[in-house]
Amino acid sequence: MRIGILGGGQLGRMLALAGYPLGLEFSFYEPNHECCVENLGTIFHASYQDESKLKAFAQNVDIITYESENIPYTAVQFLSQYKPVYPDVNIIKHCQNRLLEKNLFNELNVPTVNFFAISNLNNLKNAAEKLGFPFLLKTCTQGYDGKGQIKINNFAECDNLNLDHGLHYIAEEYIQFDREVSLIAVKNKTQTVFYDICENMHENGILKETVNKPDDAAFALAQTYVNRILDKFAYIGTFTMEFFQSGKNLIANEMAPRVHNSGHWTIEGAVINQFENHLRAILNWPLGSTQSIGQIKMLNMIGEIPNKVELLQQTNLHLHDYGKQAKPGRKLGHITIINHG
Amino acid sequence: MRIGILGGGQLGRMLALAGYPLGLEFSFYEPNHECCVENLGTIFHASYQDESKLKAFAQNVDIITYESENIPYTAVQFLSQYKPVYPDVNIIKHCQNRLLEKNLFNELNVPTVNFFAISNLNNLKNAAEKLGFPFLLKTCTQGYDGKGQIKINNFAECDNLNLDHGLHYIAEEYIQFDREVSLIAVKNKTQTVFYDICENMHENGILKETVNKPDDAAFALAQTYVNRILDKFAYIGTFTMEFFQSGKNLIANEMAPRVHNSGHWTIEGAVINQFENHLRAILNWPLGSTQSIGQIKMLNMIGEIPNKVELLQQTNLHLHDYGKQAKPGRKLGHITIINHG
Repeated sequence: MRIGILGGGQLGRMLALAGYPLGLEFSFYEPNHECCVENLGTIFHASYQDESKLKAFAQNVDIITYESENIPYTAVQFLSQYKPVYPDVNIIKHCQNRLLEKNLFNELNVPTVNFFAISNLNNLKNAAEKLGFPFLLKTCTQGYDGKGQIKINNFAECDNLNLDHGLHYIAEEYIQFDREVSLIAVKNKTQTVFYDICENMHENGILKETVNKPDDAAFALAQTYVNRILDKFAYIGTFTMEFFQSGKNLIANEMAPRVHNSGHWTIEGAVINQFENHLRAILNWPLGSTQSIGQIKMLNMIGEIPNKVELLQQTNLHLHDYGKQAKPGRKLGHITIINHG
Repeated sequence: MRIGILGGGQLGRMLALAGYPLGLEFSFYEPNHECCVENLGTIFHASYQDESKLKAFAQNVDIITYESENIPYTAVQFLSQYKPVYPDVNIIKHCQNRLLEKNLFNELNVPTVNFFAISNLNNLKNAAEKLGFPFLLKTCTQGYDGKGQIKINNFAECDNLNLDHGLHYIAEEYIQFDREVSLIAVKNKTQTVFYDICENMHENGILKETVNKPDDAAFALAQTYVNRILDKFAYIGTFTMEFFQSGKNLIANEMAPRVHNSGHWTIEGAVINQFENHLRAILNWPLGSTQSIGQIKMLNMIGEIPNKVELLQQTNLHLHDYGKQAKPGRKLGHITIINHG
């Protein structure tokens, strides 16, 4: 059984590493020549517009999944003519556009911050009046890890903006919150399982640290909201939803139709991790136990990987080096430390 | 950093899967075209007599290790001219020959069964008189998983044997024992760590099942014996020693200069597993904690892999399918079940 993965970044890498023990094989479709799955399967280096390469990729594999929601929708749709693609292509559209995503949340009674669609200075200023300062202005598409967004503090900053009229924007209320959490679910055709609530700390818009929170008071509400999305799309695969928590309220921030950075602690910290369960889900195999095995902390290594020999002095530390070239702000790896409770 | 592994079987496969998260890359040297590392690195398919291929392999990697002690000694010696080979080539000689191995054990005051070197019918009969019936006759070289050995019950069976005069044999006392155990150590230049005693059940000479035994009463004695071997060879890497236990006595059966089937439970059952620790050891990186995280059972899948969907109904079961073609008596995979204590 050969799994085709769209994308050759660290998520694809960890999917493959989790899948080989199941007896699976992997092919990757990755436009960039620099990727981190070169040694882990067959690679198709081509653009997402290249239909003959997409077709060859589809013919090379049995089933297709993806490690990023930022893959051109048309490419995923094209591939789905040839081989099953999970999660279903419909969810990608909503994940690729912050406005569609927030409208979806509201339609399903999943709370969000207040927001307005923005296309020109006039409606930006109207939004500013309603949201108050500061507020956040984000591009509707292509934003991740804090990219594509700015905080706007006053009308002068509105005036100084050069809105790109080729892009769509969303203005979002800037809120204070107690903490950021995520909930990761995995669903096959008949079962849905959930990992512990993840408590996440960001720095410059990039996830820095996650700890698992077994039996967290926010779990049940988060689960209710996640189930609404899963049901809406007859979802198959791993799914992640990020929330701001304020008191007992959860405010949906964004969703990802895939394995997620905040779930990397599951590799050693849960009985069966998010990557293996994603593969089981898309194959409609039974899902494994999501139970955590202690108190776990995951730390991203961003921009540089510290000296490995020094890191590994800590004898219970799990190192994950993605084999990527160092670059400021780039996620190069993570470490996991488990306190066996 | 690229690791060269001699052999492309399941041990090489699991070394690579454990090594990618450390940021390592892998090349394999494997004479057989059918192997189970095809997707996991660069493969050199050539005979161990092909010096130009061996040289190219050495030039392709930074450091060399092996997954089997049954690799021609001359090939390993040849490679060690070009790149460091761990464990040191000297130990291979002793592991490849049951007679040298048992002589070594005795030299280091590590108990063994009584044994005699056999080269003809005459000294076979002399040995039979001293050992009594039944006893075991084994080829000195190439035996593993119960191959290359027979039980001899009487003088008539001696007479009916066709000893191959191109081979050397060893006659060994046939003993009753309470259980079979193994101890797995890992040593870098300055540290030595040990996993729990493994209690092993064999069937037709092939390992069938292992359970870990934390705080086992036999641990200290086994550790003493293993340390004598490690010290003798200034050993680097993972090392395994198998014993018969009778009362409080441990009788050394054989040793393996490598990761071992009886240590597969460490993948999920110990903080850092035998494969990752082997790689850390040969790189002289700090060794990880060998602590077990519960009561663990490992079962080999021999000859066939049961229906996966049925297996995975057990939600805490870890499946390891080596991606090999099914064949009677062949180790095709294993499963691990952890009871988190």
